[in-house]
Amino acid sequence: MENRILLSHGGGGEETQKLIKNLFFKYFSNPILEKMEDAAVLNTNSKIAFTTDSFTISPIFFKGGDIGKLSIAGTVNDIAMMGAKPRFLSCSFIIEEGFPFEDLEKIVKSMSEEMKKTEVKIVTGDTKVVPKGSVDKIFINTTGIGEIIYDGISASNLEEGDIILVSGSIGDHGACIMAQREDIEMESEISSDCASLWPLVKDLINSGVKIKAMRDPTRGGLSAVLNEWANQSKIGIEIEEEKIPIKDEVQGLCELLGLEAYTLANEGKLVLVVPKGEEEKALDIMLKSPLGKDSQIIGKVISDYKGKVILKSSYGTRRIMEPPAGELLPRIC
Amino acid sequence: MENRILLSHGGGGEETQKLIKNLFFKYFSNPILEKMEDAAVLNTNSKIAFTTDSFTISPIFFKGGDIGKLSIAGTVNDIAMMGAKPRFLSCSFIIEEGFPFEDLEKIVKSMSEEMKKTEVKIVTGDTKVVPKGSVDKIFINTTGIGEIIYDGISASNLEEGDIILVSGSIGDHGACIMAQREDIEMESEISSDCASLWPLVKDLINSGVKIKAMRDPTRGGLSAVLNEWANQSKIGIEIEEEKIPIKDEVQGLCELLGLEAYTLANEGKLVLVVPKGEEEKALDIMLKSPLGKDSQIIGKVISDYKGKVILKSSYGTRRIMEPPAGELLPRIC
Ligand SMILES: Nc1ncnc2c1ncn2[C@@H]1O[C@H](COP(=O)(O)OP(=O)(O)OP(=O)(O)O)[C@@H](O)[C@H]1O
Ligand SMILES: Nc1ncnc2c1ncn2[C@@H]1O[C@H](COP(=O)(O)OP(=O)(O)OP(=O)(O)O)[C@@H](O)[C@H]1O
Ligand SMILES: [Mg+2]
Ligand SMILES: [Mg+2]
Ligand SMILES: [Mg+2]
Ligand SMILES: [Mg+2]
Ligand SMILES: [Mg+2]
Ligand SMILES: [Mg+2]
Repeated sequence: MENRILLSHGGGGEETQKLIKNLFFKYFSNPILEKMEDAAVLNTNSKIAFTTDSFTISPIFFKGGDIGKLSIAGTVNDIAMMGAKPRFLSCSFIIEEGFPFEDLEKIVKSMSEEMKKTEVKIVTGDTKVVPKGSVDKIFINTTGIGEIIYDGISASNLEEGDIILVSGSIGDHGACIMAQREDIEMESEISSDCASLWPLVKDLINSGVKIKAMRDPTRGGLSAVLNEWANQSKIGIEIEEEKIPIKDEVQGLCELLGLEAYTLANEGKLVLVVPKGEEEKALDIMLKSPLGKDSQIIGKVISDYKGKVILKSSYGTRRIMEPPAGELLPRIC
Repeated sequence: MENRILLSHGGGGEETQKLIKNLFFKYFSNPILEKMEDAAVLNTNSKIAFTTDSFTISPIFFKGGDIGKLSIAGTVNDIAMMGAKPRFLSCSFIIEEGFPFEDLEKIVKSMSEEMKKTEVKIVTGDTKVVPKGSVDKIFINTTGIGEIIYDGISASNLEEGDIILVSGSIGDHGACIMAQREDIEMESEISSDCASLWPLVKDLINSGVKIKAMRDPTRGGLSAVLNEWANQSKIGIEIEEEKIPIKDEVQGLCELLGLEAYTLANEGKLVLVVPKGEEEKALDIMLKSPLGKDSQIIGKVISDYKGKVILKSSYGTRRIMEPPAGELLPRIC
């Protein structure tokens, strides 16, 4: 195989076929994919979850992951957030002419390793190669299908008294990418939290805890999720500021750059809403999973401040957690 | 709304929410999409077809269509080729900072118009904005789910005696893009065939004709499809050269540029294999549809020349229709 991707690898002719068979099938192989038809034929539950994300992250290799791992975990997580077991993925690559074959193989391998954590399979794909300069290195889209096993999770379900939990420290992914991009010294300490959350969600579902709402706080961070919930459910949310888990090195970076950790992206965390009384059981389950070992109860749903998120400090002062706005960080995922 | 897309439109904060609600929902609106959850919840048949394509075409507006129309028709067609009724699509946009809002609206509108031809719906999406220079204008991924209503279509089904049909003139899309890109005079005459083929496929299925194999000859053209069939089914294919419908202006362009029309991409044609004896009935149905008005029976499956496609001229001479290879035309779809 050549050591760089050429335009001919995307032409739809013999070289494309070879790339698909020799590289993609080597790592993604399964009988459905290998049929190589226009579409994969699948047997599923009749009630499914369906979601898509494109990944444009820069740099493509970062501490804690790479664009490949992220492209699997990201879509697996959006499926899991709806109470669905991740079953099938599509993957679509847009590759810049001249991209090193070795890097592509690293990415594809990393995708295949991440898929092992949840039994999800790539069953259909697409490969485009564009001339140098038409794309920066590589973009990957994954679109996924999950079988809903826990029904009724929704951003519109929040009611007064409900309790809000987070599965661990926030801002790690955003801080990691920012540190690496700005070449900040701290870089070496901050690692992305990039991970597939399905094993944790499965534990929660199996425990019988009632799940009202659940989201992965990716772009826009914790703040985007809470503000969207407050809006969609037309309720208020009160968060105890000191309960939000934030790693020292992430907090340090935020102070250095004048940012709030709760607007930074996460790629391996979930925010959860349970009815009052279920929070200790939920927390217990979460703490037992390696994916939730730093989980915390961070707040509750209130009836005033409708549509707003309130941050309560340990001194009892209150301020509004504004929804994220402005440029934030491009190419974070 | 601003007249250009800004990085903030992809940040995941308030501007992203506004763009999604004010632009995408305006044209794609339906109750499933508007729930705005992490994943769409769908009720489907238990047997589905699942397929993905990313669209990177340049220029984004061309005679006969644009990247938006193409992104719908392309995925609808891969679903239809498996005997499935197109039901649900995801769409994922990667947009270059500074892209004109007006052009984006044109594209989104064109997607919504193309969807009306088949009742397919966009139920989930993603929007990324990348800094100027990270992508050339706009790329769109669509991934689709269809309900299989005609089971068993496969590239491995071809047997000696089967008859091969094509639904109209070949090479139109490839020739159109090439002419437009090279600024060739003929440009004005050649229009892309970009179209959703489901209405034609539905007619075929409803007629009761037995469909053994079916493909849309996109990148790599007719030659790629026939050669892949010959390979996968381990049979030979004999095509009567003068039966292949080619428009004069496309043939003219091919002669000018030294190309073969059967390696050029199509975006609104299908190639069909039926058992011997069913070909006249199939042709009848196809000719009655506006999508198949120039359909032709072009050849048959033979037992010798296994793995090869033979072109028979009107003088009886034979040559091999080589599988496409080399650079072909980048960014054709
Ligand atoms: N990166 C990939 N990983 C896994 N499978 C892939 C990948 N790229 C393509 N495939 C598979 O290879 C086969 C051919 O893909 P291809 O994109 O050429 O088909 P198509 O979508 O019908 O054509 P076009 O993209 O020109 O419209 C399909 O079955 C597809 O699922
Ligand atoms: N271009 C679009 N067209 C239609 N719907 C869209 C589009 N972009 C996003 N959406 C919808 O808006 C909602 C929010 O999308 P968003 O991409 O922010 O969610 P997410 O995938 O959970 O976050 P992230 O992309 O940061 O991982 C989803 O319900 C999604 O389906
Ligand atoms: Mg196809
Ligand atoms: Mg997501
Ligand atoms: Mg494809
Ligand atoms: Mg999400
Ligand atoms: Mg296709
Ligand atoms: Mg998204």
